[in-house]
Amino acid sequence: MRNLIDFGDMSREEWEQLYARASQIIDAPEKFIDVCRGKVSCNLFYEPSTRTNFSFQTAMLRLGGSVFGFADPNSSSVAKGETLKDTIKMVSNYADVVVMRTPWEGSAKAASLYSAVPVVNAGDGGHMHPTQTMADLTTITRLRGKVDGLCIGLCGDLKNGRTVHSLIKAMAKFNDIKFFLISPRELAVPEYMRVFMKEHNMWYTEVTGLEPVIPQLDVLYMTRIQKERFVDPLEYERNKGIYILTRRKLERAKPDMLVMHPLPRVDEITQDVDDDPRAVYFQQARFGMFARMALLEHLALQPRNDHPAPVEIGTKPICHNPRCITQTETYLPPLIKKIGGVDCCGFCDAAL
Amino acid sequence: MRNLIDFGDMSREEWEQLYARASQIIDAPEKFIDVCRGKVSCNLFYEPSTRTNFSFQTAMLRLGGSVFGFADPNSSSVAKGETLKDTIKMVSNYADVVVMRTPWEGSAKAASLYSAVPVVNAGDGGHMHPTQTMADLTTITRLRGKVDGLCIGLCGDLKNGRTVHSLIKAMAKFNDIKFFLISPRELAVPEYMRVFMKEHNMWYTEVTGLEPVIPQLDVLYMTRIQKERFVDPLEYERNKGIYILTRRKLERAKPDMLVMHPLPRVDEITQDVDDDPRAVYFQQARFGMFARMALLEHLALQPRNDHPAPVEIGTKPICHNPRCITQTETYLPPLIKKIGGVDCCGFCDAAL
Amino acid sequence: MRNLIDFGDMSREEWEQLYARASQIIDAPEKFIDVCRGKVSCNLFYEPSTRTNFSFQTAMLRLGGSVFGFADPNSSSVAKGETLKDTIKMVSNYADVVVMRTPWEGSAKAASLYSAVPVVNAGDGGHMHPTQTMADLTTITRLRGKVDGLCIGLCGDLKNGRTVHSLIKAMAKFNDIKFFLISPRELAVPEYMRVFMKEHNMWYTEVTGLEPVIPQLDVLYMTRIQKERFVDPLEYERNKGIYILTRRKLERAKPDMLVMHPLPRVDEITQDVDDDPRAVYFQQARFGMFARMALLEHLALQPRNDHPAPVEIGTKPICHNPRCITQTETYLPPLIKKIGGVDCCGFCDAAL
Repeated sequence: MRNLIDFGDMSREEWEQLYARASQIIDAPEKFIDVCRGKVSCNLFYEPSTRTNFSFQTAMLRLGGSVFGFADPNSSSVAKGETLKDTIKMVSNYADVVVMRTPWEGSAKAASLYSAVPVVNAGDGGHMHPTQTMADLTTITRLRGKVDGLCIGLCGDLKNGRTVHSLIKAMAKFNDIKFFLISPRELAVPEYMRVFMKEHNMWYTEVTGLEPVIPQLDVLYMTRIQKERFVDPLEYERNKGIYILTRRKLERAKPDMLVMHPLPRVDEITQDVDDDPRAVYFQQARFGMFARMALLEHLALQPRNDHPAPVEIGTKPICHNPRCITQTETYLPPLIKKIGGVDCCGFCDAAL
Repeated sequence: MRNLIDFGDMSREEWEQLYARASQIIDAPEKFIDVCRGKVSCNLFYEPSTRTNFSFQTAMLRLGGSVFGFADPNSSSVAKGETLKDTIKMVSNYADVVVMRTPWEGSAKAASLYSAVPVVNAGDGGHMHPTQTMADLTTITRLRGKVDGLCIGLCGDLKNGRTVHSLIKAMAKFNDIKFFLISPRELAVPEYMRVFMKEHNMWYTEVTGLEPVIPQLDVLYMTRIQKERFVDPLEYERNKGIYILTRRKLERAKPDMLVMHPLPRVDEITQDVDDDPRAVYFQQARFGMFARMALLEHLALQPRNDHPAPVEIGTKPICHNPRCITQTETYLPPLIKKIGGVDCCGFCDAAL
Repeated sequence: MRNLIDFGDMSREEWEQLYARASQIIDAPEKFIDVCRGKVSCNLFYEPSTRTNFSFQTAMLRLGGSVFGFADPNSSSVAKGETLKDTIKMVSNYADVVVMRTPWEGSAKAASLYSAVPVVNAGDGGHMHPTQTMADLTTITRLRGKVDGLCIGLCGDLKNGRTVHSLIKAMAKFNDIKFFLISPRELAVPEYMRVFMKEHNMWYTEVTGLEPVIPQLDVLYMTRIQKERFVDPLEYERNKGIYILTRRKLERAKPDMLVMHPLPRVDEITQDVDDDPRAVYFQQARFGMFARMALLEHLALQPRNDHPAPVEIGTKPICHNPRCITQTETYLPPLIKKIGGVDCCGFCDAAL
């Protein structure tokens, strides 16, 4: 693995090797404080994402490496008057690994074509955020011993949640997963996720209430429901209580169920849940740092490739997704890939 | 000592141990470049304070540790849509020590309740700034050999100066201090500071002129007088010259008097004073860095406590100070402490 | 060499020593990851310049040192209510070397008067940017074996380009350089540069077309032509194509010619040139980092000078250049230096 663009690019075996390394780091982090000594990570955050940025920064620092970059393009002049290609060519001169967060779908893939060093996708718009999935899987595996066979409740806004979609897709690598998809009807999973689960023989059921199903869950993955997502604000007011996890609702849960959340939490989990031993959402962030340590160690130690293969020069985008990186970086090559037999954009995965 | 929230929480003995360590660092800083190797400090500056931030950053870097965080919450998304508790829970996953600067009184105390790692108060509104006091005491002790028995002039705005109040309070740990409080009547020390000095048998006298008393001083601590503090701007114009330290006024001072200033200096000390060997205000900033090195070494090497004791969940603030952290973080517990027999807020120290 | 303010201050021998060190670093960067361990660089960027800042940061990090500072004064409170002298006095307490970028001509020279540690000029307005020149010379020497005797084409806006003027001046240290100065007449080199070249017996010729002279060049240094620089926008539209380097124009160039550019490139070099082995502008940025490593190693390891000689206190500027640092920092001394027999400002070099 030279880059991490999409969690789906990794085989189960590659993931298990990474997890094994993350697990060694969790057991004895002090043994790793020198493994990236002399290595430098460039963290380009074209949109602010403090949690993700802090996690990647400290992951590199705890390996003995160092970090430069920007946390917000407004405080930087990089984004101005320069192509993404040139920015990547420039920073990959200075860095051993590039970590990118952008609002543009497919941007990490685009960067990887020109970079002399490995590229990590730390979120490219609503498209992919593979290291969040790594954090989630590390938490589950570490605390439950395995992922196979678990019964997982996903609760909240399942329509818009990138985190949730990525987790469902990642679960296709495991066996005998059961999903309870808990959401208001307005915010149910998109049809293409249903198709995905059916194609991969994943058991799932959709429900509108949390309380009735909570006793069956091994993992309850909470997400935020944003008022703005509702067409009818009254509908939001009527529904929101159903999807708030309280200490009382937790009473009927299994004693070893995990309560997870990608953070930040607003009020979808009440304060009194925090001291319950099943509440692992803060630990989950810590496991995320360890997972990123395993990843950065793997990537930052790879040799540079100062002469990546020449890339075809495009002239205009073939993709119609207005959020796709090819819309603005028009020199990108016309990459096509098949997804489920359909021609899709090689950057943002949208059907052509 | 697990956290540094208030200098007053430290015993004289604890301070002397810290000072002894700072002094060793001053003597041979090169011996300490590895003592925090592998350790990470999280510096959360919710308001900009470049000097304090630079001092804490370099203190950690010179111990071989590393630093992440933000210098201004505007360039960060942390402050948005998340409680202080959740932010601290998150960053203490990544860090070995948290350094906080905020405009909210009592915020460092609040953070310390939830943090898995030690918390340092780098200024919580007008409340406390204990490491400035450490810088001041380190400078005096290092350059005068001791603090006991000194005659200290405090000059400028003594009404609003947090630095000055903290220094007076800290001096209660020492013996035979004499204070000359030099200020316009409008900007004299608040009554509660007079009460404090009387209760602690500290000798003081209040004067309006600097020149007459300067020959008696061992230390002259200058602070800025801001025009905005005067009700009558003409009064400011009439007075300001009195409180400006010039080379001429210095002529009558003792040859070993120290001229100190917390910086930034505006025009309350003229340029021609800078080259006088008694002018130690720039050195004072350097001693501040060494004092912070001693502190961070002490704190960052402590073991994590990933399961701090559960904290009572509050429902509304019991404190009426509008700048108290409990006004906005309403889940904080209703902490009360006695100060001089009076019930006070356990966060901001305001009388209830 | 205690500071680097102006490339012209360096003798050819000093430069060759620095280059020799840069070359050793290029050959085996892994041998240098510890040479600045325990050393700290303060990077003060009073105007954003992401590329230069990244290059200096990573140079220090790759030597095992660390970095603090600000990338933009808006995200900092330093610039406010404090003289440059006080800021430098403060930060040189914390740092082993200060790297400064400002919009004010002569500011790095001003800083060097008060600093306890070496100062590097990372660009002071339109005045000097000596490490860009180091990057250029390192690239040429490394890839062509020498600088003496080369035929160098400078193409684009030669009137306003600080980079180009610095490079011409630096070439006065070398022998038998030939310059082709390729620009529209409106944007030809200023008369004082012609005088400089004549005084130093440098061969040059001015032409308006790139294609006719390209076969004779050993180095082609491209720069951007900004539309705003033209009095007549139509003139810009008529001319711009002439100064755009394309793969087709490259066909007639020597097989070992170097195409250089200070970056960022906009459209003055087409995308299809990037894969030509003669296109070394991205490598040039990498060589710039290595040159800065050699410089920072030399400077950051020098002993502190906590008591620089007292500096005369000025009262008003003697220089009339409105962009000169002495206009705002009025305490600066009235420094005068002779340039070509003319009295010039000791900070910004403007004739008095």
